[in-house]
Amino acid sequence: MEKREFDLITMGEVMLRLSPPRHARITDSSVFEKHAGGAELNVAAGVAQMGLRSAVLTKIPRSSVSAFLRNRIRFMDVSDDFLLFDDDPDSRLGIYYYEGGAYPRKPSVVYDRQNSSVTSLQFEEIPESIFTAARMFHTTGITLALNPHLREVTIAAMRRFRDSGTKISFDVNYRANLWGEDEARETIKKILPLVDVLFVSEETSRRMFQKTGSMEEIMRSYAEEFGVKIVASTRRTVHSPRVHDFTSIVYDANEDCFHTEEPYMNIDVIDRIGSGDAFVAGTLFGLLKYADAEKAMQFGNAISSFKDTVPGDLLSTSYDEIASIIKAHRSTGPVSEMNR
Amino acid sequence: MEKREFDLITMGEVMLRLSPPRHARITDSSVFEKHAGGAELNVAAGVAQMGLRSAVLTKIPRSSVSAFLRNRIRFMDVSDDFLLFDDDPDSRLGIYYYEGGAYPRKPSVVYDRQNSSVTSLQFEEIPESIFTAARMFHTTGITLALNPHLREVTIAAMRRFRDSGTKISFDVNYRANLWGEDEARETIKKILPLVDVLFVSEETSRRMFQKTGSMEEIMRSYAEEFGVKIVASTRRTVHSPRVHDFTSIVYDANEDCFHTEEPYMNIDVIDRIGSGDAFVAGTLFGLLKYADAEKAMQFGNAISSFKDTVPGDLLSTSYDEIASIIKAHRSTGPVSEMNR
Amino acid sequence: MEKREFDLITMGEVMLRLSPPRHARITDSSVFEKHAGGAELNVAAGVAQMGLRSAVLTKIPRSSVSAFLRNRIRFMDVSDDFLLFDDDPDSRLGIYYYEGGAYPRKPSVVYDRQNSSVTSLQFEEIPESIFTAARMFHTTGITLALNPHLREVTIAAMRRFRDSGTKISFDVNYRANLWGEDEARETIKKILPLVDVLFVSEETSRRMFQKTGSMEEIMRSYAEEFGVKIVASTRRTVHSPRVHDFTSIVYDANEDCFHTEEPYMNIDVIDRIGSGDAFVAGTLFGLLKYADAEKAMQFGNAISSFKDTVPGDLLSTSYDEIASIIKAHRSTGPVSEMNR
Amino acid sequence: MEKREFDLITMGEVMLRLSPPRHARITDSSVFEKHAGGAELNVAAGVAQMGLRSAVLTKIPRSSVSAFLRNRIRFMDVSDDFLLFDDDPDSRLGIYYYEGGAYPRKPSVVYDRQNSSVTSLQFEEIPESIFTAARMFHTTGITLALNPHLREVTIAAMRRFRDSGTKISFDVNYRANLWGEDEARETIKKILPLVDVLFVSEETSRRMFQKTGSMEEIMRSYAEEFGVKIVASTRRTVHSPRVHDFTSIVYDANEDCFHTEEPYMNIDVIDRIGSGDAFVAGTLFGLLKYADAEKAMQFGNAISSFKDTVPGDLLSTSYDEIASIIKAHRSTGPVSEMNR
Amino acid sequence: MEKREFDLITMGEVMLRLSPPRHARITDSSVFEKHAGGAELNVAAGVAQMGLRSAVLTKIPRSSVSAFLRNRIRFMDVSDDFLLFDDDPDSRLGIYYYEGGAYPRKPSVVYDRQNSSVTSLQFEEIPESIFTAARMFHTTGITLALNPHLREVTIAAMRRFRDSGTKISFDVNYRANLWGEDEARETIKKILPLVDVLFVSEETSRRMFQKTGSMEEIMRSYAEEFGVKIVASTRRTVHSPRVHDFTSIVYDANEDCFHTEEPYMNIDVIDRIGSGDAFVAGTLFGLLKYADAEKAMQFGNAISSFKDTVPGDLLSTSYDEIASIIKAHRSTGPVSEMNR
Amino acid sequence: MEKREFDLITMGEVMLRLSPPRHARITDSSVFEKHAGGAELNVAAGVAQMGLRSAVLTKIPRSSVSAFLRNRIRFMDVSDDFLLFDDDPDSRLGIYYYEGGAYPRKPSVVYDRQNSSVTSLQFEEIPESIFTAARMFHTTGITLALNPHLREVTIAAMRRFRDSGTKISFDVNYRANLWGEDEARETIKKILPLVDVLFVSEETSRRMFQKTGSMEEIMRSYAEEFGVKIVASTRRTVHSPRVHDFTSIVYDANEDCFHTEEPYMNIDVIDRIGSGDAFVAGTLFGLLKYADAEKAMQFGNAISSFKDTVPGDLLSTSYDEIASIIKAHRSTGPVSEMNR
Repeated sequence: MEKREFDLITMGEVMLRLSPPRHARITDSSVFEKHAGGAELNVAAGVAQMGLRSAVLTKIPRSSVSAFLRNRIRFMDVSDDFLLFDDDPDSRLGIYYYEGGAYPRKPSVVYDRQNSSVTSLQFEEIPESIFTAARMFHTTGITLALNPHLREVTIAAMRRFRDSGTKISFDVNYRANLWGEDEARETIKKILPLVDVLFVSEETSRRMFQKTGSMEEIMRSYAEEFGVKIVASTRRTVHSPRVHDFTSIVYDANEDCFHTEEPYMNIDVIDRIGSGDAFVAGTLFGLLKYADAEKAMQFGNAISSFKDTVPGDLLSTSYDEIASIIKAHRSTGPVSEMNR
Repeated sequence: MEKREFDLITMGEVMLRLSPPRHARITDSSVFEKHAGGAELNVAAGVAQMGLRSAVLTKIPRSSVSAFLRNRIRFMDVSDDFLLFDDDPDSRLGIYYYEGGAYPRKPSVVYDRQNSSVTSLQFEEIPESIFTAARMFHTTGITLALNPHLREVTIAAMRRFRDSGTKISFDVNYRANLWGEDEARETIKKILPLVDVLFVSEETSRRMFQKTGSMEEIMRSYAEEFGVKIVASTRRTVHSPRVHDFTSIVYDANEDCFHTEEPYMNIDVIDRIGSGDAFVAGTLFGLLKYADAEKAMQFGNAISSFKDTVPGDLLSTSYDEIASIIKAHRSTGPVSEMNR
Repeated sequence: MEKREFDLITMGEVMLRLSPPRHARITDSSVFEKHAGGAELNVAAGVAQMGLRSAVLTKIPRSSVSAFLRNRIRFMDVSDDFLLFDDDPDSRLGIYYYEGGAYPRKPSVVYDRQNSSVTSLQFEEIPESIFTAARMFHTTGITLALNPHLREVTIAAMRRFRDSGTKISFDVNYRANLWGEDEARETIKKILPLVDVLFVSEETSRRMFQKTGSMEEIMRSYAEEFGVKIVASTRRTVHSPRVHDFTSIVYDANEDCFHTEEPYMNIDVIDRIGSGDAFVAGTLFGLLKYADAEKAMQFGNAISSFKDTVPGDLLSTSYDEIASIIKAHRSTGPVSEMNR
Repeated sequence: MEKREFDLITMGEVMLRLSPPRHARITDSSVFEKHAGGAELNVAAGVAQMGLRSAVLTKIPRSSVSAFLRNRIRFMDVSDDFLLFDDDPDSRLGIYYYEGGAYPRKPSVVYDRQNSSVTSLQFEEIPESIFTAARMFHTTGITLALNPHLREVTIAAMRRFRDSGTKISFDVNYRANLWGEDEARETIKKILPLVDVLFVSEETSRRMFQKTGSMEEIMRSYAEEFGVKIVASTRRTVHSPRVHDFTSIVYDANEDCFHTEEPYMNIDVIDRIGSGDAFVAGTLFGLLKYADAEKAMQFGNAISSFKDTVPGDLLSTSYDEIASIIKAHRSTGPVSEMNR
Repeated sequence: MEKREFDLITMGEVMLRLSPPRHARITDSSVFEKHAGGAELNVAAGVAQMGLRSAVLTKIPRSSVSAFLRNRIRFMDVSDDFLLFDDDPDSRLGIYYYEGGAYPRKPSVVYDRQNSSVTSLQFEEIPESIFTAARMFHTTGITLALNPHLREVTIAAMRRFRDSGTKISFDVNYRANLWGEDEARETIKKILPLVDVLFVSEETSRRMFQKTGSMEEIMRSYAEEFGVKIVASTRRTVHSPRVHDFTSIVYDANEDCFHTEEPYMNIDVIDRIGSGDAFVAGTLFGLLKYADAEKAMQFGNAISSFKDTVPGDLLSTSYDEIASIIKAHRSTGPVSEMNR
Repeated sequence: MEKREFDLITMGEVMLRLSPPRHARITDSSVFEKHAGGAELNVAAGVAQMGLRSAVLTKIPRSSVSAFLRNRIRFMDVSDDFLLFDDDPDSRLGIYYYEGGAYPRKPSVVYDRQNSSVTSLQFEEIPESIFTAARMFHTTGITLALNPHLREVTIAAMRRFRDSGTKISFDVNYRANLWGEDEARETIKKILPLVDVLFVSEETSRRMFQKTGSMEEIMRSYAEEFGVKIVASTRRTVHSPRVHDFTSIVYDANEDCFHTEEPYMNIDVIDRIGSGDAFVAGTLFGLLKYADAEKAMQFGNAISSFKDTVPGDLLSTSYDEIASIIKAHRSTGPVSEMNR
């Protein structure tokens, strides 16, 4: 494949996240910490932090608040080349409020994303050059769910990326508060033939897709029915809002092979948001860099577990740091306590 | 007049204000300070801080973010008896971002208040008891400008308050970013016959209302044309975003008398937002407590100048503190440097 | 029973709590976080957060520091109608300093509450209207222990509340640093005949009250000897300052029935102060709302466990949040990780 | 005179100061900044920061809060050799709350110092060695005013210091909220014969001491009547809480000479507390180091003006820094904008 | 001239700046705020914030601290394409500590930049592509002064840029703590023939360059002697560390014309660092965008004055914001108080 | 032994430690918390906090940053009598950056200590009086490793202390990033004959010292070969960066006796840095105060475990607090949850 400027371009909504300081409550704290977030941005940031080139395609209002988001996106090494600005005076930015948990208090999210700029994105606004700019394109079910217009535009973009020789990655990321199971299933079934790499959970497979059988059978079925090449599914155990275990299964249809490993146990969860997206980022990194499903699974697990320890949606790390996490996880001998 | 539970009820939008720490930029800071704001809430809070009973009539979503606002409203001694909650899952809270200035950097505001809950307020939702609950009702041109539906509801409420023996206070507060001059003039002219106490600036009088002549002539004209009893207008000189002078003129139509005083000079402006509303609060306090236009003007000036020194939209003070400000302002002898 | 303005009125000292940021030391940190606290206020706040109407009867100096406390009390939805202000220039506010722990460092408290305003409260200062204003009255052994004068006033108030048809709740809350075991036992025995709902720990029952036998026998004995209707006792296991288990036993004398449930295990303790008072609040909420000892025990346990995760003495929550905690605790199936 | 361990020992109350962040209000802010303060400690710290050896004689409870104060005292280079600890469980630490001002909002102080440990100080508790440990002893009228017992102890100590060859410095620092003018005048007149260096304001001289005539005549009268060697008086002009001018007059009775200089104009007042004490410190430093009233006046003015720019009661500076301030103040040529 | 990827490339040291919070002292505060700084980076950031493309050529260690700087550089819209990383384990990052002033306390700087990575930069390490990548190259006398090796490399780079058709901008920025006047003069005279745009102060012209005559004569002399096309010199009046006036003179040698304007008066100085570099940025922006010395002078003055109000070394603004500052500065009519 | 002014003098580098707030990243946070650190200072502070007199011998630049360190050293009750100041304008202060961990993210350290002032310390600069000022002298292998010149000076100082009747304590503290194993072994073997109390880990004994056999045999070998009187070695189990177990073995050669105890289990690690130094401090405290190896081991374990819960390098505690930790650790009965 020819050399392209970006390894990955993602498409979706970029939001302002506002959170009280750790352990404080939205109802009570005197400040909010400011973060940039959004599932597709999180994936782009994760891949960029590992050393590949990524960009995010989205639309935000032209304002100082958006300028903060743009700055943070660049801070995280994601290109802002495809950040489109909305000059409509009524345009607005999606916001969400997130409060972490501590057992028995659960984490909670309040969304305020109705009518945000991205939902008005027109296909014609998307720069033509983008379709040949990247090796892979990634989006999620959230983008399809935001509104019917954006769904059409997103699917049209997926087709153009595919037709221009770009691999397609898709994370189902089903959100019951955004759309119903029937609408989601019908929509996603239509686009699955476009997809090379699919992220889908066991629960969504069983409930929304109405799959049955073992998880291995389910994963294989996506390949058989729709021609998906890689299917990845996470396995998370939530002991409390502050302690999780995490691993995953990655199915490589070419080899008809399932890859998994021992979970990261008793992860110290500092900020859980974006951990699923970090798994996507790590898996795509493994595929883009090594074209190796085993490595993809290892990077996915390591980055996802690592993300849980980092405040904010966006991963802040480096290839060397993650490589040493993987090494320690696979090691059976003594491991140094500290990086000096 | 009979004893009523509240001295003042105001009606308008309550918003979440988000500001970077003093002198930091929205585009750069890592946190936002959280405040409750909104012109009509600010007036209710000012009157409450002076020791009278006030409430605000508004509608906000049912969420933890709104719960923070409700808590702050009570913190400021304003009753939440007429805070209506919106259970529509698509309901949203108005937000605005405010960054203070430092010469030559101007203060700036970014609004995100489209389709907020208050714009869906139905007349039928307003508790019947409210119309006889207060001695005075106050609202502003902002509430009329937010959308046509809310305008109808607000005017209907004004009439009901008036018919139930409640005095009506109105602050024109013309905002060019919300509606045009013609629409504003036509609307407001219709409601002025309901109004007992009118707040209007010289600039708005000349431009939007197309008045001519001296400011005294203009103020008198509101009384003559529409039967307004009190007309108040502020006089602010902005030396820099951090230094203002402030005074006002209050016209008492019964006495055909103008009240004014020497300005507060070189006010240390810490947070300018809500200073105009604090003037309204002080003036209404003077009228409600003393039925005296001279005192109304003095309290209006003192509270407004004081508000400039207090972070956030909402005044935090007490009757004793403001009384000592007035005393110091009127004194010609030595004044103590500190309250011990 | 007739409709009364408040569901609960509590009586006791309201204090300023000063704490270093989480994990920092009093001896070293550069700031203190400001909180309002006090066992009886904590109970009133817990009941108010659940949606009932509560007030606190106390006395504090007239100062800006007290104004902060008053504001916080309102913030937490507790009425300040019975907050009495002390105009004596020598009056003072009780203060306590609290530092959280981390094993092996224990949490620690430094009190500075000698001669605070509340200890000068005169029976004549208490507004007559209060005695018929509430369905239930609550106080604790701390209020009795502060000084002999306040003890007399408190007992006189209890009698008047009782005589006016108010249920009486009492939390023994024995503090060895405030009074001796003999003095406490003699005093409390005299007031137990007034008490409908009693909170007492096993340790205090055995040591201060010199009870023997099983805890069930002890609880039943309070009903038999003094006519108490409900006896509640907590069961807390402290694994470390940051990890507790918690449950309780509630004895309903009418039914001669003991209610308990599986403990909340491995609670993430963010701020342990007020957790016992939150148990009282939850129990009283269950009794006031449902007149059901089983529900009282469930709400007591849930609110107490939840409080451990909230910074400050005062619970910040809502009925819906606690109801979902109870549901999750009683569920055996899968539970969602996050509130969206 | 023989070599002594300390240049200066001061005696008075050491307090915990709690302040909201700059411009925030006591009634509203969520944190307090922690400072150590007290007029006599402030003087000791100022002298220590200039490079001389100083200590403070006081009594505080044995607690973690006191340990913070002790740490801060050492941080500021003041010796804690004469910090006495109070093991009485009822002992308490004096506290004061300070909020800065911004015109027209005045700075304000709330004191909570009744019955603090220092008021129980017994003469017998003072280590015998202290009386020959220093070249100079300093205290203020505040210490005399706190309570009659402490007054006796303080005067006895003054005599012992004097008899042991220690120079005596005294700052009248009259506080109307602590004692009446008659009581103050009678008390202070008795101790003036012990005093070598006297600090007294014009206002106190005229009102409390009932002096008349020009300020020069008044200053000379203290020398003539009581044998005082140096009389110093500040001249402060308060333009606003954030802008002051400052200079002083120092009278050297030996030379019958008055020393003064052009004021520091438009000082940026960040924290006004302790500025008067810093003037005392600078003056005493000039006398102790150079035995020169002109230099004493210059150091007094420079340190006092500098203190206004430093948060907290206690001066944080160095000899070199103050020397460069004096040089710049006296310079007529160009002055560098920045210390590089 | 052909289209080039960047409008401006600057070369110099990028440092970590550590500052206590506003008004706090280095000797006392408990935290440092982290900033990226360095004269040449500041210029690149200023130009980037105005909407042109810029990059900085420098060398920093490979570490997490450097990663923070790299992230900040991208945050400010400056390209990191020419950020070279130093893998030598002994490599270090330049640091400086900055504390702002408040009259009479001066701002102060402590440098710790000895042997930083940039001083080891080899000419061979500089990517060949850089020399044709930009329309203009900018460096300062600081880079020449850091050490003799870096001086050689910098001059060699200047020549290569010049030879590749890049305009050369140079800011003398003489720092007496880095090198002597004679060494500086001899060095800079050698490179002036390469320079198109020269920034030099009156004081440096008279002292270090030993120029005499009026400032106009001096500025013209640089053009006549060395062929410089544009000479720019700032005029700053320091009323206090918090209040400055600012304007400049820009000489256009082609037109033999001097451009100046009324100063920005009473600028509210929040953070003075980088204000001189912001002037350079604004001037270069005017030249690069409009090739107009009058506009260059206006943008230089506006951006420099604006920078004084922004915390940190790096300008955070936009073209629209600066254009409105210029418009307000040149307006004689009423100007809006706030950007809404 | 004669009475000496200090119980302990330590010698080594004092550094500025900069850390992001807990759980934040160096690459991302907006502030650094400032701490004073350095292995030998940490030991001096630990001993001082327990109530003995200690001082640190080191050399730092003369700057405001150093003044902060000096202030913190005094804050922690360590004498600054032997803090030498470096007036070389090129002198620099050692810095290190520390970021805590959360599984699977490891803690990490970045050092910037090359050419710091302490490495230029001359033997002649050390005040002669120091050699007879203390009962014990302590240093570590870090000081020997920093550079060859400092190594010579340190060894010379050790000899002088030894010759002047001072006990010598030495912590091997091998750091592979500072020197190689062979160089370290050869150097340390030469000084071991001077050493009375030796701290060495099992890993360093086996790898760097090439010891074999059981840990008891190894510890005994240091006594037999070099005449060391006390050998102490820690036993730490790292479950995660936030959970450790800790105990130790202390060998008393005189008694040929090994002292150990049950580990502190599941320590809540807030800040791991300085925990090893706190063990040294506790052990030396036990030896200096009680001359008892069993108590030394107990104090070493308690203080080290306690240190893990305290932010910063330096222990902040008191004798009473540690004594109660030891009592609770050894108790088998019920232990109070909180210090009231």
